[in-house]
Amino acid sequence: MEQNLNLFLGLSFLTVIIAFAFALYLYLWVKKAKVRNKRIEEISKLIKEGADTFMAREYRILAIFALVVAVVVFVVLPQPIWRGEILENFSMALAYLAGTVLSAIAGKIGILVATLSNARTAESAEEGIRPAFLTGFRGGAVMGLLVVGCSLFGVAATLMLTSDPTILLGFSFGASSLALFAKAGGGIFTKTADVAADLTGKVELGIPEDDPRNPAVIADNVGDNVGDVAGMGADLFDSNVAAAASALVIASSLTGSGLNTISMVFCYSFLGLLASVIGIATARVGKNGNPTRALNSSTYVTTAVFLVFTAIATAVCPGFSWRIWGASSVGLLVGVIIGITTDYFTDDTKPIVKKVAHASASGPAFTILSGVSYGFISALPAMIGIAVSALVAYTLCDPLGDGFAVFGIAMAAVGMLSIVGMIISNDAYGPIVDNARGLAEMGGLGEETIRTADELDSAGNTVKAVTKGFSIGAAGLTVISLLGAFMSEVNTALAEAGRELITGFDIMEPTVFFGVLIGAAVPAVFSAMLILGVDRNAERMVAEIHRQFREIKGLKEGTASPDYGKCIDIATAGALRELVPAGLMAILMTLAVGFIGGPESIGGFLLGNIVSGLLLALFMSNSGGLWDNSKKYVEAGAEGGKGSEAHKAAVIGDTVGDPFKDTAGPSINTQITVVSLVSSLAAAIFVSFSIF
Amino acid sequence: MEQNLNLFLGLSFLTVIIAFAFALYLYLWVKKAKVRNKRIEEISKLIKEGADTFMAREYRILAIFALVVAVVVFVVLPQPIWRGEILENFSMALAYLAGTVLSAIAGKIGILVATLSNARTAESAEEGIRPAFLTGFRGGAVMGLLVVGCSLFGVAATLMLTSDPTILLGFSFGASSLALFAKAGGGIFTKTADVAADLTGKVELGIPEDDPRNPAVIADNVGDNVGDVAGMGADLFDSNVAAAASALVIASSLTGSGLNTISMVFCYSFLGLLASVIGIATARVGKNGNPTRALNSSTYVTTAVFLVFTAIATAVCPGFSWRIWGASSVGLLVGVIIGITTDYFTDDTKPIVKKVAHASASGPAFTILSGVSYGFISALPAMIGIAVSALVAYTLCDPLGDGFAVFGIAMAAVGMLSIVGMIISNDAYGPIVDNARGLAEMGGLGEETIRTADELDSAGNTVKAVTKGFSIGAAGLTVISLLGAFMSEVNTALAEAGRELITGFDIMEPTVFFGVLIGAAVPAVFSAMLILGVDRNAERMVAEIHRQFREIKGLKEGTASPDYGKCIDIATAGALRELVPAGLMAILMTLAVGFIGGPESIGGFLLGNIVSGLLLALFMSNSGGLWDNSKKYVEAGAEGGKGSEAHKAAVIGDTVGDPFKDTAGPSINTQITVVSLVSSLAAAIFVSFSIF
Repeated sequence: MEQNLNLFLGLSFLTVIIAFAFALYLYLWVKKAKVRNKRIEEISKLIKEGADTFMAREYRILAIFALVVAVVVFVVLPQPIWRGEILENFSMALAYLAGTVLSAIAGKIGILVATLSNARTAESAEEGIRPAFLTGFRGGAVMGLLVVGCSLFGVAATLMLTSDPTILLGFSFGASSLALFAKAGGGIFTKTADVAADLTGKVELGIPEDDPRNPAVIADNVGDNVGDVAGMGADLFDSNVAAAASALVIASSLTGSGLNTISMVFCYSFLGLLASVIGIATARVGKNGNPTRALNSSTYVTTAVFLVFTAIATAVCPGFSWRIWGASSVGLLVGVIIGITTDYFTDDTKPIVKKVAHASASGPAFTILSGVSYGFISALPAMIGIAVSALVAYTLCDPLGDGFAVFGIAMAAVGMLSIVGMIISNDAYGPIVDNARGLAEMGGLGEETIRTADELDSAGNTVKAVTKGFSIGAAGLTVISLLGAFMSEVNTALAEAGRELITGFDIMEPTVFFGVLIGAAVPAVFSAMLILGVDRNAERMVAEIHRQFREIKGLKEGTASPDYGKCIDIATAGALRELVPAGLMAILMTLAVGFIGGPESIGGFLLGNIVSGLLLALFMSNSGGLWDNSKKYVEAGAEGGKGSEAHKAAVIGDTVGDPFKDTAGPSINTQITVVSLVSSLAAAIFVSFSIF
Repeated sequence: MEQNLNLFLGLSFLTVIIAFAFALYLYLWVKKAKVRNKRIEEISKLIKEGADTFMAREYRILAIFALVVAVVVFVVLPQPIWRGEILENFSMALAYLAGTVLSAIAGKIGILVATLSNARTAESAEEGIRPAFLTGFRGGAVMGLLVVGCSLFGVAATLMLTSDPTILLGFSFGASSLALFAKAGGGIFTKTADVAADLTGKVELGIPEDDPRNPAVIADNVGDNVGDVAGMGADLFDSNVAAAASALVIASSLTGSGLNTISMVFCYSFLGLLASVIGIATARVGKNGNPTRALNSSTYVTTAVFLVFTAIATAVCPGFSWRIWGASSVGLLVGVIIGITTDYFTDDTKPIVKKVAHASASGPAFTILSGVSYGFISALPAMIGIAVSALVAYTLCDPLGDGFAVFGIAMAAVGMLSIVGMIISNDAYGPIVDNARGLAEMGGLGEETIRTADELDSAGNTVKAVTKGFSIGAAGLTVISLLGAFMSEVNTALAEAGRELITGFDIMEPTVFFGVLIGAAVPAVFSAMLILGVDRNAERMVAEIHRQFREIKGLKEGTASPDYGKCIDIATAGALRELVPAGLMAILMTLAVGFIGGPESIGGFLLGNIVSGLLLALFMSNSGGLWDNSKKYVEAGAEGGKGSEAHKAAVIGDTVGDPFKDTAGPSINTQITVVSLVSSLAAAIFVSFSIF
């Protein structure tokens, strides 16, 4: 191992402690605010209970799933147990479980704080935008700090205990399994509730969005938390761990280079966390200030702090390289640029949203056609950004020696993800203030307060599009480096088998090409299965809502309460039921391709999967955001405003966009990571057993 | 050159003469039927004039475009004129022009016969389904025979005159340029008219689909011809030429193998044409028979005849190989399988169409979501089919020696395209009987006749989905072999420059990866630009229709005639105006990537382009067909039938699907071919000038 590595591991643990302490401080700060309004307290409790129900049920299923997978991991990975060493397989299985558990803990506490903050944000909105913003943002920041802290802790502890970077892939696979449940399952949950609530409430009964008579309304609020707080957190936990793990796997193969690459990975990671702590601490709006600007400026602060800190570290520490610093900086800057271009396509002060709103005046078909078209176009700048950053990182680091080029790409991913603590904080802020807005309305807090909550909510929506683009970009670079990690695992297996090493995957080889075509189809099928799952699940929930209105006397008149719990149950059970086939499909296709075409086919498969996955994820997230904001733009009075034909069309666009942007689009990331990790972990098996 | 090659060239010309003679016979057979109904004659003349207007205008612009490109080709291809030989550049420019002219002639005559057949089919529907089917089918078959005859003639003549397969790429590029105009331009035209006619007629005024009071109705009928007859013909002319050209480029690099590969390409091509002649000659329906079955069974006859003929040829001719026969047969069989799976997703007797119709009962958002989802899923079997056929063809031919593996893939494409004469006949049948149905209604031919015409039309729709899937599959294999042709051009250039040859494109190289990401985004942006073009163009046409209803007195009451020509003008001018930026974008992106990353980046670019292009083309064509048939299924009485909420939702789905399936989806093929050919032609330039 490298000299001074223990120093950097120690500093990593220290930073984790700082981050956790800061998170605790923020938690206590949020908690000390009092909730005086009885109605708000009551509903907030219902939301918390609903989220707890979902999480408990999800974690119960997940625990069984994780144990089964852990046994499989123990038996076959990294080598079938009858060929390899039992201790290594045992460590792998333990690391897998640790990955799921740490991610679950971060998610659980994040939800706890988020459901605690929503009511307090609603009440502090009575005192103005400054305290309300701080309450919402700090509630979200607890999640951001926990996610990054847990992931850095897990990676550092795993490497320290095992000294074997391959085991890190097991830890990362654990994080991915959980992310698949949390992100895709949460995504199905949230959209089931949203779609069913809208269909029955707004469309059939003509009651407002957050009307407490609607049996689905609590499920809808719970959905925001489980989808956007726990789901997004697990997704970025997953990306963050995968980026670090693949960088470390590649770094450990760069022996005898004289550079302290492993130390660099840890150093940059903890500096990123530290930068996020500083960014979070500085976030506040001025009196009558703009919350969007506040969120963006803390992101820029974090970015600048990270660049300066890493530059100092690179100058000071022995065995650090400016070329690698350059790669990591390029990754971070491209991430920011992707966020900004996403904003261009989804912000209602920019022309695209207005064009889609205008098209809606000709009918819903034109809403859909224009949204799909701009969604496709919006993928181009991000794809170019990722392509350029990979090319620049590679070119910068290639002169350092064999294997450094791919390490450069991995460090670009680490750089892009360095500010992820800040990104998650911004993202978790969204559902908290969204809930707060609903609570303010249900609690009857008055026009002024609702307007304040609205302003906070609108900032949340704008920033959400940016963070979504950012997280897709980060996943893009991460999976490119996972491709590098996969090749390095394949070569380890080939070397052990005494066979010739591979130098890459040639697209003119038919086995590679075969993999590319099938890999490209998988994200399309995966997202289709999730969307159809939302449809089926929403149908079940609509039936339940109809039943309640039929059977509960006085519900329509507001004299009786609906059975909120039943709707939450349906959303929960359905989400998990619909998710499993999609996840299994992706994993089975990977195994089928691997056993047919061997590692070459898997190389192609991963490439196809990454490329089409990125394209579809960007398309779906952005067109979904575009439709959402076009609807809001029309509701604000454009093209005839609320109740006009354009509004009806825009609502249809928004309903189509909901599962695009909150279920399928962001789950594709996780699908790609899961598939990449399965491939890397099973690399040795594919080398031994395959038809071609 | 190979021994006996002249014999096979001679037989190719002979088959072309047979095909042309048979086409002439069919033309005269169709022409001898009389049109007695004055109204039908009149409207049919309007359609013919409209199509002529579009074609004349298109060809005029195209002539200028082609001449400009020919000059560019002359100056820079295959080598800048100041470095290469003037004669070679001159041949290339001439071949380019020949490619455009031959494709244009086939398109022009095809349209002529199609617009002649529609009225005659309508009238013969009075005598029953048998004569009406024959008239419609034989009218379409003229186009099928001409397209394949002209392409085989062009390829054979070019090779005979120049003995240089690289020049064939110029011919193929000419065919592609024309296809881009005909397919994408025609696609924009037809959907502009269709959407505008529906929006104003059915939706605003509540008049039937083919009502002659609607100023857009003739443009709509013209659109069927220019989009589906001329456009699809040019598209398959292009694929057919590209498949043969790339097979010949690769074959000519297989020197000293002892196999007569060039002869095989020609032999299989003319046997395919002969098989199509036989298939066309046997097509007929029994009394009260089923026209869908008639179309399908002649396709199967053609397939079987081709397999038997090529087996005999392979057994008899010296220097032919059974392995190559196997590759070509696998390609053909996979093509048929892709057609059948497409049918599964778009036929209204199968479950998927019913599911989408059922989803429509919950509102248009669910029509869209389920259609998009099944469209994504439908891509999987076709992608697997193409992947497997490429893998099998490669594996079969690899033992024959260096370079034979890629030749195997090229021959799979040639095999798949062998029955293209039959496919185009089936496809051109669609718009003829669609027009005939409209004419029967406008001419007041009575219920019975309209029902017969309806039955013919419905068979046309079913078969259209199949041929569309087939043509996308064929394009998929063709572009894979074009990738092989590109590599062979790069190596020729490298050899001339005295540099090291490349053996493939490694996805772990960042320049390759860079190309893959950008190449994958191009088809998405291309199709988005076309769809937005349709939207903009339809908006202009709707404004014109509103103007006519406002300014022409008595139009609404049916006492005055609308100005059909004005609508045709708008559709024509707009189609060409919207098409050019999309085509230029694709070509400029190719050149940008080539000049930045050199041939490696272009290899990746082509891969990304092929993979995402296939995925999107399959998705768009199939979900479009699915929505179309769901609407028809609801109109036939399901889910409440016409006028129900489900019907309204299904109509919205159909409107979204129209530009998907008739503009963007099938144009992606052409975009991929154009980009592949530009890359191959500019290979030498990229080798000399690039940044990386």
